[in-house]
Formats: sequence, C-alpha cells, structure tokens
Amino acid sequence: MENSDSSRSDCPYELWDEETVYSGPWITAKQVQFRLNGTNSQGVWQSAHRASKPFTKNADGVDIVAVLKKGGKKYFVLVKQYRIPSRTWMIEFPAGLVDTSDADVEACGLRELKEETGYSATKVLGLSSGKQILDVGMGDDSVRFLTVEIDGDAEENKSPKQELTDDEHIQVLTVECDKLLEFLDQVNKSDDTEVEAILYTFALGYSFKTRFGL
Amino acid sequence: MENSDSSRSDCPYELWDEETVYSGPWITAKQVQFRLNGTNSQGVWQSAHRASKPFTKNADGVDIVAVLKKGGKKYFVLVKQYRIPSRTWMIEFPAGLVDTSDADVEACGLRELKEETGYSATKVLGLSSGKQILDVGMGDDSVRFLTVEIDGDAEENKSPKQELTDDEHIQVLTVECDKLLEFLDQVNKSDDTEVEAILYTFALGYSFKTRFGL
Repeated sequence: MENSDSSRSDCPYELWDEETVYSGPWITAKQVQFRLNGTNSQGVWQSAHRASKPFTKNADGVDIVAVLKKGGKKYFVLVKQYRIPSRTWMIEFPAGLVDTSDADVEACGLRELKEETGYSATKVLGLSSGKQILDVGMGDDSVRFLTVEIDGDAEENKSPKQELTDDEHIQVLTVECDKLLEFLDQVNKSDDTEVEAILYTFALGYSFKTRFGL
Repeated sequence: MENSDSSRSDCPYELWDEETVYSGPWITAKQVQFRLNGTNSQGVWQSAHRASKPFTKNADGVDIVAVLKKGGKKYFVLVKQYRIPSRTWMIEFPAGLVDTSDADVEACGLRELKEETGYSATKVLGLSSGKQILDVGMGDDSVRFLTVEIDGDAEENKSPKQELTDDEHIQVLTVECDKLLEFLDQVNKSDDTEVEAILYTFALGYSFKTRFGL
C-alpha cells in the first residue's frame, strides 16, 4: 500500500492501494483507490502515463507556437502528420519530447522547429512556466509552449529544409493568422484529418473577439 | 494479425500485429508494429485509450468555453478540481464526458455547465465539428468545444448553485477575460496547481495580439 501522494494536506481525496497494472516499453497504466474526504463515495481511478516517468515537475514535451512574417503577411507554422493512436492525419503545432537530460526547453523547442519545419526562429517571445497537462482525466502527459517569431524574408528562411528522421513524414503548413480558425473548422469537417485540441483552442482564442464579439 | 486500419490508402505506415496489451475497467493499452512506407524504419507504437471505446467518430467529452457577462464586465467561467492522474489541483474548462447514447453534445455541454458551475447558458455561440484529440502522441481521447454566453444579471444566474455528485469537489472561478492569460501564467508558477493545456492555449490565443503584437 502506497498513499504518500495523498499525504499532501490539500488533497481532497484519500488515496490508497496505488498499483501499476500495466508496464510496457512506452506506456504505464496505474490505478488507485480513492475516496473523497468526508464522504463514503469510493472508487478506482485508472490513468495512463509515459513509461518510467515519475511524478515529476518537468514537462514531457514542448510545443512551438510560431508566427512566420513574410512579404508583409503573418502566418502560423503548423505540421500535418499521421498519428497511429487515433489512426488519422492530424494538424498540430510543431512539437517534440523534451529529453530528461535536456534542461534547456527553449533550445529543445527551437531545434524541433528547425527539424520539423526547416524554419529558424528569429526571436523567442515567450515560454510557459511549469507544465500544462494534455489530458487531465486520463493522464499526466504534459508540455510547455514556446512562442517564437520567424523572419521569413531572412536568407536562412527563404528555402526551409526539414531535417527528418527515417520514420518521420511531417508536412509543413503555413496558415494566415487571421484565417487559422476558419481553416481548422474546415479540417474538423473532413473525414480523414483531425485537429489536436491544443491547437484548436489556440485558434478559438485567437479569433474569439472577431467571431463572437466577446 | 489485424491490419485493417492501415488498409486506408492514405496511411503512410504499414501497421501490423495490433494487440491489446492491457485491458482494465477504464483504460486500455494497445500496441502495433509500424513501418513507414518505403523505408526500413520499424518500431512499436503503444497508446492508451478509454476502455471499450472503438475507433469511433464521436468525441469522448465536451468542454465548455463560457463567457459570463455581468455588471458590464466579461469573465471566463472556469473550474478548479483535484486531478488524481497528475496528483495536483487543475484549472480547467467546465467539461464532461459524452455518454455514448447522448447524441446531443450541445445539451450535454449545457447540462455539465449547469451542474459544475451552477450557471445557465443564455446563448449558444458555437460547437466545434468532428472531434479534437487531447494527447495526439499517446492516445485518441477526444473532445468538442461548446462556446456559450451567460447573462450573469439574469435572475437564474444571480445565485448560481452547483449540482455536484457525491465524489465531486469542484470550485468555480470567474476570471476577467482580458486577464485570463496573466492569471494562468501565475498559476503555472505555483507549486500546487496546474493548468490544462487546452485552456492555456485558448488564453494564449485570446491575448496573443495584445501580448505579442502579432
């Protein structure tokens, strides 16, 4: 029986009998018994985790929000790749896993942007602190968001060349910033391509005032 | 051996030996052998799925993007709850699972908003088509986004009362729209509370032009 995780005084649940019910090379499944403090409401919570990942403070990955300025216009740089877990093509932010030895998340993000899209960021605008959780009900997989600007008129970005590994097949898309939400709404209606949720909500936020006047 | 999923002509991978390596009451783990067409680059992809969920066209959940208009100001309505998979408090959109028998995602979202926050939506502004995938590298768990407006000055919304089940402990937060990103950035720096990624990118998009001039 392990219940150290519920010893934090602010946890509203009593947690006990945590166990790893599946341990594979990439995925671990865990379960724990839970009871909301002060109630008799009890249950089992199962969750999925990246293998060999402890409950850590570090993010698993970094997603890059990249604005390409080129010829007086602004574009978001996105990627399209086939995703095996959902068996569909997916429109996503460029992204990569952060190696546990890779303390410099910003450098990791810039390298992933260059490898996946061929573009070199000209300016780093921001990096989210901490980590943001991708699927809060099912797991603890997490990312940080690196926001960058790319000068598309600079020599190094005139003919961007991807640097993909043998098993990657990533397509690069550039979408005019003000047309991003409209573009993704069309993708959502298509049969063979989906949109990752973090990209969709980014687009929804970006065009929120324009679309809803709010 | 099953490889029907790779029979789609547009799949860039050859997929074979798909198997369910763990099957629990809530989580299923699968793995499949893959090889990118035209290469010798081969590997195993493991993924996590909601139990008994087929590769379906329907979203698993619905998240509600709710704007509360009250006293001449605008707020986003959020929830804070303890999340067992990551062992932290989490700031999130109000949300709920869509029952497989629940064909009406809009009605489900409005009901969840009322139950989790006590607020009754006054106007539905939009609902994303298809489904959006939460953690594209690890699974196929998916949601749709319902955008609503709440008249906070209406009688029914003057003293909102949550309708929680015994095992729920959800706190309601209202954050001024233009201060959302700043608020979440502060949460990201705290030790005991995290932000779900879909909410963070929404906020980043909402304040993108203001913050970065882009």
